[in-house]
Amino acid sequence: MNNLRKRTALFFEGNGEYRKVGHYIDVFLISLIMINVVAIVLESVISLAQQYKHEFLLLELISVSIFSIEYLLRVWSCVERIEYTSMKCSNLKRRIKYVFSPLALIDLIAILPTLLMFFITFDLRFLRVFRLLRVFKLTRYSRAMQLLLQSFRDESSSLMAAFFIMAVVLILASCGIYLIEHDIQPDKFGSIPAAMWWAMATLTTVGYGDVVPVTPLGRFFGGLITLLSMGMVAIPTGLLASSFSEQLRKRRIMFSDAVHERLHDGQIDDDQAEYLENLRCKLGLSKQEANKAIKVQLSSRSKHLYCRHCGERQD
Amino acid sequence: MNNLRKRTALFFEGNGEYRKVGHYIDVFLISLIMINVVAIVLESVISLAQQYKHEFLLLELISVSIFSIEYLLRVWSCVERIEYTSMKCSNLKRRIKYVFSPLALIDLIAILPTLLMFFITFDLRFLRVFRLLRVFKLTRYSRAMQLLLQSFRDESSSLMAAFFIMAVVLILASCGIYLIEHDIQPDKFGSIPAAMWWAMATLTTVGYGDVVPVTPLGRFFGGLITLLSMGMVAIPTGLLASSFSEQLRKRRIMFSDAVHERLHDGQIDDDQAEYLENLRCKLGLSKQEANKAIKVQLSSRSKHLYCRHCGERQD
Amino acid sequence: MNNLRKRTALFFEGNGEYRKVGHYIDVFLISLIMINVVAIVLESVISLAQQYKHEFLLLELISVSIFSIEYLLRVWSCVERIEYTSMKCSNLKRRIKYVFSPLALIDLIAILPTLLMFFITFDLRFLRVFRLLRVFKLTRYSRAMQLLLQSFRDESSSLMAAFFIMAVVLILASCGIYLIEHDIQPDKFGSIPAAMWWAMATLTTVGYGDVVPVTPLGRFFGGLITLLSMGMVAIPTGLLASSFSEQLRKRRIMFSDAVHERLHDGQIDDDQAEYLENLRCKLGLSKQEANKAIKVQLSSRSKHLYCRHCGERQD
Amino acid sequence: MNNLRKRTALFFEGNGEYRKVGHYIDVFLISLIMINVVAIVLESVISLAQQYKHEFLLLELISVSIFSIEYLLRVWSCVERIEYTSMKCSNLKRRIKYVFSPLALIDLIAILPTLLMFFITFDLRFLRVFRLLRVFKLTRYSRAMQLLLQSFRDESSSLMAAFFIMAVVLILASCGIYLIEHDIQPDKFGSIPAAMWWAMATLTTVGYGDVVPVTPLGRFFGGLITLLSMGMVAIPTGLLASSFSEQLRKRRIMFSDAVHERLHDGQIDDDQAEYLENLRCKLGLSKQEANKAIKVQLSSRSKHLYCRHCGERQD
Repeated sequence: MNNLRKRTALFFEGNGEYRKVGHYIDVFLISLIMINVVAIVLESVISLAQQYKHEFLLLELISVSIFSIEYLLRVWSCVERIEYTSMKCSNLKRRIKYVFSPLALIDLIAILPTLLMFFITFDLRFLRVFRLLRVFKLTRYSRAMQLLLQSFRDESSSLMAAFFIMAVVLILASCGIYLIEHDIQPDKFGSIPAAMWWAMATLTTVGYGDVVPVTPLGRFFGGLITLLSMGMVAIPTGLLASSFSEQLRKRRIMFSDAVHERLHDGQIDDDQAEYLENLRCKLGLSKQEANKAIKVQLSSRSKHLYCRHCGERQD
Repeated sequence: MNNLRKRTALFFEGNGEYRKVGHYIDVFLISLIMINVVAIVLESVISLAQQYKHEFLLLELISVSIFSIEYLLRVWSCVERIEYTSMKCSNLKRRIKYVFSPLALIDLIAILPTLLMFFITFDLRFLRVFRLLRVFKLTRYSRAMQLLLQSFRDESSSLMAAFFIMAVVLILASCGIYLIEHDIQPDKFGSIPAAMWWAMATLTTVGYGDVVPVTPLGRFFGGLITLLSMGMVAIPTGLLASSFSEQLRKRRIMFSDAVHERLHDGQIDDDQAEYLENLRCKLGLSKQEANKAIKVQLSSRSKHLYCRHCGERQD
Repeated sequence: MNNLRKRTALFFEGNGEYRKVGHYIDVFLISLIMINVVAIVLESVISLAQQYKHEFLLLELISVSIFSIEYLLRVWSCVERIEYTSMKCSNLKRRIKYVFSPLALIDLIAILPTLLMFFITFDLRFLRVFRLLRVFKLTRYSRAMQLLLQSFRDESSSLMAAFFIMAVVLILASCGIYLIEHDIQPDKFGSIPAAMWWAMATLTTVGYGDVVPVTPLGRFFGGLITLLSMGMVAIPTGLLASSFSEQLRKRRIMFSDAVHERLHDGQIDDDQAEYLENLRCKLGLSKQEANKAIKVQLSSRSKHLYCRHCGERQD
Repeated sequence: MNNLRKRTALFFEGNGEYRKVGHYIDVFLISLIMINVVAIVLESVISLAQQYKHEFLLLELISVSIFSIEYLLRVWSCVERIEYTSMKCSNLKRRIKYVFSPLALIDLIAILPTLLMFFITFDLRFLRVFRLLRVFKLTRYSRAMQLLLQSFRDESSSLMAAFFIMAVVLILASCGIYLIEHDIQPDKFGSIPAAMWWAMATLTTVGYGDVVPVTPLGRFFGGLITLLSMGMVAIPTGLLASSFSEQLRKRRIMFSDAVHERLHDGQIDDDQAEYLENLRCKLGLSKQEANKAIKVQLSSRSKHLYCRHCGERQD
């Protein structure tokens, strides 16, 4: 029994002997999630919903069954995961801990709306649309996205500051246009919250044009705000650009450090090669980049000095 | 008395023994400012303003009282601030200096409109909205925002040049579309200032669409201007991106230098650790980054050479 | 015969003695492609199509003849190309391989629609417009564009992740606005696919304004989505900015390495100078940059040490 | 006479003893240009043009007189400019050379429309608006703008490639939407050139919304194009961001090199300090940055090694 549980855990993590099978399972689940999302989107078209009523229901039942089995298996086998085996507590506690982890919560959300629909029957459409949250299940499978989210987290304080500047400018823009235009266009700029719709569309350079100032003074003020909008867009873009550069630099150094540590005898054996290949994938570096780093480290051993920053030889 | 004044100053600066209390006061004031901003925005909705007339008035009175007390206490205790105690001049001069400092002016602006409303009674709405400037009081509390503003200041000459290019392109675009379209759409492109509304919305890529060229030639010219708009948006964004990268590099070096200076004996004692932690917060560096910098400096002492650029070991 | 074939191959590659003639042929073909594109675009204007019917037909016949001859010559002579002569297989296999290479397919697509029009006669307009794909023939001639596309390829996994985030936000935005507004504006937000039109225009900051939320809740939700749009735009821009910086660094190092290898005797002879000049063009570096790199490498020979990162002298 | 001419040349260049006076003249001319631009813009408002007819005429006459005198003085004194005195040719040739230099042409364009208005009298309005080109005279005075334009020039081949990609996407987008929508909206997508107006507004994310696809297929295609628009905007922005970073790095190295060359005896005398200060302004570096560079170079002399890249001490 415990052996089966261990195997299931390895299976889901795609480690050890189950690497290949785990990969196929991943591809199957990703496809199923995508088919589900497309189906739910199409189901919102009334004509399609009526015509293919049974097909949609069938797909839903099959999907929810599979996702439920996946969820139950994950909860059952979670106690065998590497990060949990080292913890000193009962299996129940481990399971509770796992159930409240973000990825497990997303898995639960993916099946909950349909389960609820069996018991509650009010406002069906609302619950149906909530099934779209299933799309978050994909997060588990994209490494590049996790790296992107890392960038957001690293820059969170700067992005918060950018957001705060945005909020201040938004409030001042709304209150300015409200003062200038609320007498002429009371239906559009009748209050500051109403004026925020225009300010928001302008400051993000979306510019719907359904609400625009019409007085000369309003247009002059509006022109100033469009100018500010360029700054508002430039701040987060600039922050992310600088953050992505930084991340790339850090990851290159991390890989280089790892190569360095693993090269005590000046050679790479198969285990180390596999480890470095895994690390390379995890860090999202190109093969060319990785080879260069390894070459640099190898030759620094054999007394040909290469610069560690840029990979050039140093005589 | 002087002792009390000193304590008040320490209190507001959040230094020494009052660190924790100062922090709570900060949180309280930030919340109060935010509640105020939301209230003023909602008060502009006529139905809400009439329904909750007394609640809004009460909140306003309480807020202004608190802000006034804060302002008076700050002005009273400012003579004990570190930057003022070293100045050789009378307390009055110090206070005058403080009153005209940007942060104190913002504090004054936050209470002035309400105080004025007690004396003047014309155009109340205008004064009411001005209370929104209270939002600037938040500047005092956000370090990341001060760092962002630093970037703007560092790039001010380049941003001015970008602004100048923008102004030249704006004038030429307005005058071009005016020449082409003022006969066909005299209500929209009747003069160059009127044409600027279109040019502004186009060059910032806002694109309201309330005013658009209709002749083939006008659309051809308009197409060229939309192309230029991409450049207009790219310039400030590129400048800020490059400036943020630069700032990050500078701050990393500043921290590294500070660690270097404080490590004469190859060890970090508690005082130094606190100083470095404070500096880390002030520079907005991540803990991971700071630890790396300290490790690098420590090992450079103990003859393991690390590269000073990137933190890699160099054998 | 084989000799003629070899010459034709050299001719198209613009190598050896045919460098100059090859250049003129390139300029001629580029001009012809551009004239074609302009003609096809203008031909879609009905009045022009009728007035200059014969001129358009004549241009088309001449162009297709030239492109067909070019295509046949390329296929005939491809077996003499450097990359194919080293392969051990029959000429037929080489030709098949060449015909299915991307650039050869583009050449075929450029002549196919007109050839088809001689045989099939249904929906002529559709085929006519397809001739516009001729514009892709220009890819062959622009090195800077190939470098740009390289950046896209290097960042493909990150861009895919950005695209995935965009897709998730798009689905959630569409489904949110559908829930809020589909009762009030059934013609505009009647289904999730319909709501996607608004979500798409908003998230990319295009903001047509033909479809906008009208309820307060819808506008509040729409405001949140416009905020997210800034992030959506910032991610790919930031990725590309960081990638372009990276490419520049890599190319500078590649050139520097090449100079290093070619300077064994501390001097540059004519052959090496030509090789480096070619490499410089291929890498898109400025002359100034290249000269600096050569100077640095030369002086590192003569015991004046220059830093390999930035080119400064180090005493 | 020659002495007077020499003085005039020094005067305009703002060198030597006339530095201060030259600065005041610059400020005066800049103000005059700006007043002119504002006046010409306002003159296009018919009511203002009629009301202040005489004032506008007076300003115009005074301005053109001053600009004419400036132009004549510059042409007269140009033979004494540093870059011309070294040339071995007659004064006439030098003057012709100067007259056709970009800055001199701009000066001529600034006075030409008014001069022409004395002789020709047809379409006055057209000539009047052309006086706005006077705004280019400001280019002479902004160093930061010249640095910005330098970035554009350095990236010209990449920007051309970006522009080429844009053109290809534009053509394909226009022809796609033309095929899909020209039957349903013949007035808006009746020909490919007409469809370009929509494609242009969409690809630059301006998004006027006066022309939008209405069929489901058209909206699907339009959605794809809005997605591509993010890439179109990202390319030039990314290129400029990377280019600005590069420029900053280059300028920092140039300054550092200059400091290095001027520090043979380990000290900075007044002449050198002035030279470095001038260079610092020309390169647009901050004072802080310059001081750091000087400190680094000074200490590298006195055996305290600082890293030349980042300014950190290296023990």
